[in-house]
Amino acid sequence: MITKIDHLGIAVRSLDETIPYYEKSLGLKCEHREEVPSQKVRTAFFTVGEVHLELLEPTSPESPIAKFIEKNGEGVHHVAFATTDIHAQLKGAAANGVRLINEQPFEGAAGKLVAFLHPKSTHGVLTEFCAPKTN
Amino acid sequence: MITKIDHLGIAVRSLDETIPYYEKSLGLKCEHREEVPSQKVRTAFFTVGEVHLELLEPTSPESPIAKFIEKNGEGVHHVAFATTDIHAQLKGAAANGVRLINEQPFEGAAGKLVAFLHPKSTHGVLTEFCAPKTN
Repeated sequence: MITKIDHLGIAVRSLDETIPYYEKSLGLKCEHREEVPSQKVRTAFFTVGEVHLELLEPTSPESPIAKFIEKNGEGVHHVAFATTDIHAQLKGAAANGVRLINEQPFEGAAGKLVAFLHPKSTHGVLTEFCAPKTN
Repeated sequence: MITKIDHLGIAVRSLDETIPYYEKSLGLKCEHREEVPSQKVRTAFFTVGEVHLELLEPTSPESPIAKFIEKNGEGVHHVAFATTDIHAQLKGAAANGVRLINEQPFEGAAGKLVAFLHPKSTHGVLTEFCAPKTN
């Protein structure tokens, strides 16, 4: 069952140029920065109510985020829903004809299990499910 | 002060084709549908934790949503932040050089006051502030 939006992934060209916008113009606070070499991104996290904003800066032209920005410009890259049971959630989506990018969840940031649904079968929104690893 | 994400606006070609995805594949429930002639859209609302998802279907080729879809395809159209003081929030953003689409808030859906920031000065995310009208 989906319980909340866990985070929005937002593709940006440069964390250093974008963090000041979120801090000064929106009044939010950057809580954490982290490089994720496996995804070829540097990330910065903000919290807004129960939702996190995850800014994603590509560290290589081969990063999926670099390709996204090249095609679409900066903007919302994905929407991540927290689920109580990621395996059941994936199975339910697949049973309804949704194309899964990840048939099996893998370990994402902060030890969570994550899996993505293909935007071609989600009406354009790259959709992530995520759940605690003990799930 | 921003307190939470109020809603995500998601541009879709057809509510009738998209609502079943959100209901069957994600397990969410469509709570309300409404036509907003001034914006040339039909909308459908879902609730996920403290955030609403607002699906937006254009009712005319002149609708801003129709133009968005033509350019970008279906997907996340805007992110709306709830604020305790929309006037102060707009003033603060403008003071930091953010380009406002609406200098003054106007009455949006459900009697809320809303105003938009231009995506060219928000690193690609069309950003809405919203607040109760008594604000």
